[in-house]
Amino acid sequence: MSMADPDLARIVSDIAEEMSARTDRGQVATYIPELANVDPARFGMALIDLDGHTHVGGDADMPFSIQSISKVFTLTLALGRVGDRLWRKVGREPSGNPFNSIVQLEREMGVPRNPFINAGAIAVTDVILSGRQPRETLGEILRFLQFVAEDETIFIDQEVAASEKRTGFRNAALANYMKSFGVLENPVDFTLGVYFHHCAIAMSCRQLARAGLFLANNGRNPVNGHSVISAERARRINALMLTCGHYDGSGEFAYRVGLPGKSGVGGGILAVAPGLASVAVWAPGLDEAGNSHLGRIALEELARRTGWSIFGH
Amino acid sequence: MSMADPDLARIVSDIAEEMSARTDRGQVATYIPELANVDPARFGMALIDLDGHTHVGGDADMPFSIQSISKVFTLTLALGRVGDRLWRKVGREPSGNPFNSIVQLEREMGVPRNPFINAGAIAVTDVILSGRQPRETLGEILRFLQFVAEDETIFIDQEVAASEKRTGFRNAALANYMKSFGVLENPVDFTLGVYFHHCAIAMSCRQLARAGLFLANNGRNPVNGHSVISAERARRINALMLTCGHYDGSGEFAYRVGLPGKSGVGGGILAVAPGLASVAVWAPGLDEAGNSHLGRIALEELARRTGWSIFGH
Amino acid sequence: MSMADPDLARIVSDIAEEMSARTDRGQVATYIPELANVDPARFGMALIDLDGHTHVGGDADMPFSIQSISKVFTLTLALGRVGDRLWRKVGREPSGNPFNSIVQLEREMGVPRNPFINAGAIAVTDVILSGRQPRETLGEILRFLQFVAEDETIFIDQEVAASEKRTGFRNAALANYMKSFGVLENPVDFTLGVYFHHCAIAMSCRQLARAGLFLANNGRNPVNGHSVISAERARRINALMLTCGHYDGSGEFAYRVGLPGKSGVGGGILAVAPGLASVAVWAPGLDEAGNSHLGRIALEELARRTGWSIFGH
Amino acid sequence: MSMADPDLARIVSDIAEEMSARTDRGQVATYIPELANVDPARFGMALIDLDGHTHVGGDADMPFSIQSISKVFTLTLALGRVGDRLWRKVGREPSGNPFNSIVQLEREMGVPRNPFINAGAIAVTDVILSGRQPRETLGEILRFLQFVAEDETIFIDQEVAASEKRTGFRNAALANYMKSFGVLENPVDFTLGVYFHHCAIAMSCRQLARAGLFLANNGRNPVNGHSVISAERARRINALMLTCGHYDGSGEFAYRVGLPGKSGVGGGILAVAPGLASVAVWAPGLDEAGNSHLGRIALEELARRTGWSIFGH
Repeated sequence: MSMADPDLARIVSDIAEEMSARTDRGQVATYIPELANVDPARFGMALIDLDGHTHVGGDADMPFSIQSISKVFTLTLALGRVGDRLWRKVGREPSGNPFNSIVQLEREMGVPRNPFINAGAIAVTDVILSGRQPRETLGEILRFLQFVAEDETIFIDQEVAASEKRTGFRNAALANYMKSFGVLENPVDFTLGVYFHHCAIAMSCRQLARAGLFLANNGRNPVNGHSVISAERARRINALMLTCGHYDGSGEFAYRVGLPGKSGVGGGILAVAPGLASVAVWAPGLDEAGNSHLGRIALEELARRTGWSIFGH
Repeated sequence: MSMADPDLARIVSDIAEEMSARTDRGQVATYIPELANVDPARFGMALIDLDGHTHVGGDADMPFSIQSISKVFTLTLALGRVGDRLWRKVGREPSGNPFNSIVQLEREMGVPRNPFINAGAIAVTDVILSGRQPRETLGEILRFLQFVAEDETIFIDQEVAASEKRTGFRNAALANYMKSFGVLENPVDFTLGVYFHHCAIAMSCRQLARAGLFLANNGRNPVNGHSVISAERARRINALMLTCGHYDGSGEFAYRVGLPGKSGVGGGILAVAPGLASVAVWAPGLDEAGNSHLGRIALEELARRTGWSIFGH
Repeated sequence: MSMADPDLARIVSDIAEEMSARTDRGQVATYIPELANVDPARFGMALIDLDGHTHVGGDADMPFSIQSISKVFTLTLALGRVGDRLWRKVGREPSGNPFNSIVQLEREMGVPRNPFINAGAIAVTDVILSGRQPRETLGEILRFLQFVAEDETIFIDQEVAASEKRTGFRNAALANYMKSFGVLENPVDFTLGVYFHHCAIAMSCRQLARAGLFLANNGRNPVNGHSVISAERARRINALMLTCGHYDGSGEFAYRVGLPGKSGVGGGILAVAPGLASVAVWAPGLDEAGNSHLGRIALEELARRTGWSIFGH
Repeated sequence: MSMADPDLARIVSDIAEEMSARTDRGQVATYIPELANVDPARFGMALIDLDGHTHVGGDADMPFSIQSISKVFTLTLALGRVGDRLWRKVGREPSGNPFNSIVQLEREMGVPRNPFINAGAIAVTDVILSGRQPRETLGEILRFLQFVAEDETIFIDQEVAASEKRTGFRNAALANYMKSFGVLENPVDFTLGVYFHHCAIAMSCRQLARAGLFLANNGRNPVNGHSVISAERARRINALMLTCGHYDGSGEFAYRVGLPGKSGVGGGILAVAPGLASVAVWAPGLDEAGNSHLGRIALEELARRTGWSIFGH
């Protein structure tokens, strides 16, 4: 199809309206002031199909801190850089623990369980860094996001990055711990510096949905035809998002929504409907597992009304 | 389509041939003699599409001990019996631990993480038992499998069941532990008795593929039209198989195969391609996570040649 | 000295009076009705010096359920039976976990950390059982206690034993778990049966203090001259009581009281002042670690007034 | 007594001779080159009684890296500085885990179990630092050791300190982890800097035995009469050494030696015989728990020949 589907437009606007009206919103992340000050009533949604038709609702054009959603793109970059050698440094299994747990690292010799928990994402960042300067590496990550989103206005929120650095003692613990096992190769400060900054990238739902479109289309942007990664790699990243993309709420997200997705503590979720669309939602309040409360409900409603679950039609 | 796809026939027979020729076979489970004595060179495969066309290869008609694959069917039964109240007794998250771990139970007040680790499946069995006699309950489970497989010859291997009972101290530990937290309601011996017996059900690949067909078709058997469960419930069981169906190798299976699946230590795997087919493979040798080594490779090959991954086409 | 020390008499009666007046009593154990029904206002104390002079205060002659204090005597018996081979089945380190934790067993292949946590005491009981009948073994344990206490009226409270058996699922979990690793050699039911019954032995403070006297005198009863164990073994049992005798409150007890001691959830504590005296206290209310709240405070006061700490005079 | 005991002289020289002849020596710590290069055949021993008579054997005057033995003295200083408020930042229980484990910190909100595991000693160092400059704090620690040892030649081995700093990623992980829970109050780098340097203090057995003498004499140096701490505090530090002084080998040390002691990975052990003597041994090879192999055996032999166990005479 080459025309926008009027039903999708309706569904997205309905959901945005419903979500804005709800009073159950979860708790906004408080660990840094820049996140705590975000208005919990915000809700944004953007859906882009394989023809490039975009449907938006609510605050779809307001930039927010993508936080851990950046891990999808750093994983993509790291796989491009070292291929399957990446898996020497990080596993592919759900962790069964909260996002910032250090227990598992002790049991498994400093190798994090997957690229989407904090420790795993720090290890992935270390692979991208690969002996270079932090500034250079960070530039590469930002340019990659601008490239896949086709939008050069995407930026790093320096205040968020500075706050993360000031208060990121738990991430510093994870990084030093992995370093003690030889899993990290660069200076801890370099790796953490890049990590804190790429988590501080700000994007709107519209930008984020577009940035994820290649994952819904076998690794190729269906609009401009750019090939980002191979079809096999796109499938595998989607599989990792499905099993590990929501920390210790990944099973619940698969059960309720049935789409690969990755959340961030800024309240965003990027979801992928393979062969159909890329979707981004944003609602700042989080549930107990640290995932956007209304974001998940919005995607559950989307899956229900479109029948887009990957587990049956 | 109403005619068998000749390509599928070819793919299945090719894979069966390739697998039979491989010498890397993993280790046959040794904890009970009945499993240890199985010939490690066996390989069977059966695929049934939504039209009921069945393609088989290797030892597809030889019954084997389905072991944990039975947990898919007891979960289906338990949900039918108590609905979402089941989730008070068992979670929906990957465990991040081996199949028989007890650590997680201590941390989480005796509530197992999901219905597919041993503790979770014992809790599910307890829900089905629900105050009744073990014999009656076991009869219900067996009849359900005979019903979905449309085959009354399916039986319980009493020698396997007796062996499991004699040596099942770790499962007895799990059951008593949950009982101490009030998660189990029936006498521990009753629940374990039913559990050991339903794990000892023997089926062939052909029977197993047919038994799982309703999961590939939104809860309804596409051949005889019988509705087994709702479409939503079928999707959700598939989601649980994807995130938790291979113990601490679930992420790996999702990454490599990309289909919901459930393995058993007898060497069987049931996989579901939603909207397309149900597949059963059997190869007795296991990998380190306790899943069939060649079974997983066979399904990886199937997914590669058919493009059936749920994560992209 | 061969005459009773009037100061000790005064100290014991003072402490008994003070403790009876206190209103902070902790929580009586509730897991079986027989323990929950005990009057929390009870307090008993008995001290016997190496000349056999006995000083008592409060309810010193009222029998109570000694529970885990029995583990000191089963350890003594097991060492007598198999010597240092016992240490193949159980360790000698503090556990760093609550008394009924199962986590450590998984990490350490079913070998409990020490003979005084539940798992360790069950393993010790299994060693005493050693292929015999439960009744015979239990008789041996009871007769040993009657022998060291020089009192044939000591008995097993059958109601307590029956209750423990009915509700002891967590201990059944521990026993089955160890059995799965081959740490237990007898049928689980046999071992648990003996364990539940020796924990149900009832003794008064006076009986208990006398029973422990050999530990204060290098393994020999100083009154009747009976040699129970070697001096080295007595020292080593005392060392284990000091490091492991109060579960996850052992460090606290060493820090505050400074004497080897063993507590039970019935509210009793047996303490040993090497070269000086054996002391038993009883106050049913427990602290968070499961040790007698006033019992510990009474012993702290005793140590303060006598200067009997083993860590300095 | 005011004259040296000729038997003690004999015992010490006998033990030094026996130990030098043994070929089982354990493994020298390798994590920093300065420790790895120490000759594994070294053995030193010094015993000083309450009259100040000193008996030495082997390499008793050769300085070695005291490493974790410094934790006894920083604990003493921190208690002097803040008294029992210290216990808000660190517990008093054995850990049941290796010396550098981080698992327990996650379970217990960043509060380390005791002052003698690495995390606990870092927390204690942070309390001493208390807003001051690292250099000033380190000076205080060094001067305290020179004061209690009555020897101003005691020094910090700067090469060892620099190496620890370069490779101390695991300690940096522990410190950052505690910082994330608010347990540390100073900048992580400050606290770690002081910690690495006080672990790098070099002392001989003779100096170390003298430095520990106040712990054997109720807190007062019996030779020069200086009061260091109260008798109660000395007893309590001894109790902590007994229950926690040898990491996950503390139970074993209490069982075999029966004296409060603190080990360091440099191969030293300081042991205290309350009311009798202070003893230091040094043998660089370590056992699996990270404690001096021959050092422990030497002290076991000393306890056997003197009958100095605190658990019986």
